[in-house]
Parts: sequence; C-alpha cells; structure tokens
Amino acid sequence: MDTAKMRVVTIIATAELSERLERDILQLGARGMTIARVDGHGAHGAHRASFLDRGNVRIETIVDHKVADRLLEHVVKHYDGLEIVAFAYDVQAVPKSRFE
Amino acid sequence: MDTAKMRVVTIIATAELSERLERDILQLGARGMTIARVDGHGAHGAHRASFLDRGNVRIETIVDHKVADRLLEHVVKHYDGLEIVAFAYDVQAVPKSRFE
Amino acid sequence: MDTAKMRVVTIIATAELSERLERDILQLGARGMTIARVDGHGAHGAHRASFLDRGNVRIETIVDHKVADRLLEHVVKHYDGLEIVAFAYDVQAVPKSRFE
Repeated sequence: MDTAKMRVVTIIATAELSERLERDILQLGARGMTIARVDGHGAHGAHRASFLDRGNVRIETIVDHKVADRLLEHVVKHYDGLEIVAFAYDVQAVPKSRFE
Repeated sequence: MDTAKMRVVTIIATAELSERLERDILQLGARGMTIARVDGHGAHGAHRASFLDRGNVRIETIVDHKVADRLLEHVVKHYDGLEIVAFAYDVQAVPKSRFE
Repeated sequence: MDTAKMRVVTIIATAELSERLERDILQLGARGMTIARVDGHGAHGAHRASFLDRGNVRIETIVDHKVADRLLEHVVKHYDGLEIVAFAYDVQAVPKSRFE
C-alpha cells in the first residue's frame, strides 16, 4: 500500500473565527480543508461548566509535518485568548499524488 | 513547537445517550467536548446490515492519558449492550496552557 | 484497560459518491460507519482556490489493519480522478467484543 505520510490538524473554534481561520490555513500552506458545524460543551471557566455552545466549527486539514507545525504555532501566537484548540496526529493518506 | 501530549477520545452513540454521556464525560475529568450529529450505517446484526440510523452523536474530547483510560473503561462498564463505540489516540494539542 | 487495536479510516468525498462508498465500505469488510455532512474548502486547482463546496461527506469507519489497507487501496484504484481523499490511523477501541 503506497500512502503519503501526512498529519491531520483539527482546529475547533467559535464560528465567528471560521473565515479568518480558513484564510490563514490556506495561506500557511494547506491545500484544502473540511469544515463541520459542531456544538461545544464544557469548561470555559467554572461558572459556565454546563454551558452548551451552539455554533462552533471543526476544521480538519491534511498537511505535511512542516505545515502542521506552522498551523499549531499560528494558533498559539495569533489566536491567543480566543476560544480555540487545535491538535495534530500522524496519518497515512491516499491518493498519494494529491499530497506531493 | 511546545505542545501538550494528550489523547483524543471519540464516542459514537445513539442520540438518546447524548445527555448522559456529556454529564459522565465532564464528571470523569474532561474539561470540554465537541458534539456533532452524524448518521450511522452498518451492522447492528445481519438483518439490519443496510439500516441507516439518522440521529447518532459523535462526541470528541481532548484529555490526558488517565482520563482517556477512565472514559474507555466507563463506556465498557456502564453502557454495556447499548449502541456505542469509543476510540482513543494520541495527539499533540495547543494551546498547551489549556491542557495543564 | 482491555481495548481492541484497530484503525480508523476516514474518507472525505463529494456527496454524490456517498451511497457508492457506503456500499463499497461494507463489502470490503467494515461492519459499520458514521456519515457526516461537511463543507469542503480548498485547492481543487488554482482557479478554485477559494471555492467552498457545500455537500461533502465525511465517512468514518473503525476496522482492522487488513480492512484498512483494503479500503485505502480501493479508493486509489476505483475512485481515480474523483474528488476524494482518505486517511488511516491507529486507535484503541472499545467495547472490544464489538471488534472481534
């Protein structure tokens, strides 16, 4: 099985950050992404522990290791203090030709 | 790149389990989660092999290894026989401060 | 914690491929799957770099390593030239009995 060794970066944020994130993700080197509307639930501070946010986005992009690092760094540096988390993990992706 | 070494736990279940799951996930130590409506399709027994369930939920939470184990164990012990699966995998998450 | 060592295969494609994909995935040995409607955004060629596709599907299935390879290979061989990507990664899944 000939696959491309890539990383998936998933970013979860409030919906109002979506357009800015999409623009940044493409500018930092990703070639595409998937965007899903999701609900968020959880601890944004003790008093809101059971608060349900309708209107979050979950953006997922398949990128090489360099772009993955760049995306995580960008989130830390340029979205500081905003409602956003991001995580990255290794995957094997196909078709390989799309990722070269 | 300074990231937090976390685990993502994804739980897929019928929608009627959603509220109970959300409560349990917070009580077991997760600080937040993402909830998406999804369709399910597949083998709940041979006779329903092509059955399409509208109304499943996909709950995703970023937790440390201890909480991840606790969540998987909880699903096994307390949701026995119900329509539910869960899986966990390692990720690098940011911003690191949110996960400490 | 007694878990099943599985792989998650995620397939993202245009919505018109959904039924064909669902059928193929079951035939290749998966026992179930989750289907979510998502938006796509990105590079399908330079002139469409900012094109937003409403109407993609994100199909996710938990399978053993053999079925995972089969699914990736199938995407490469039988969906050549179509709007589709797939990726696979290792997970620990529960309840173990569902995956044996």
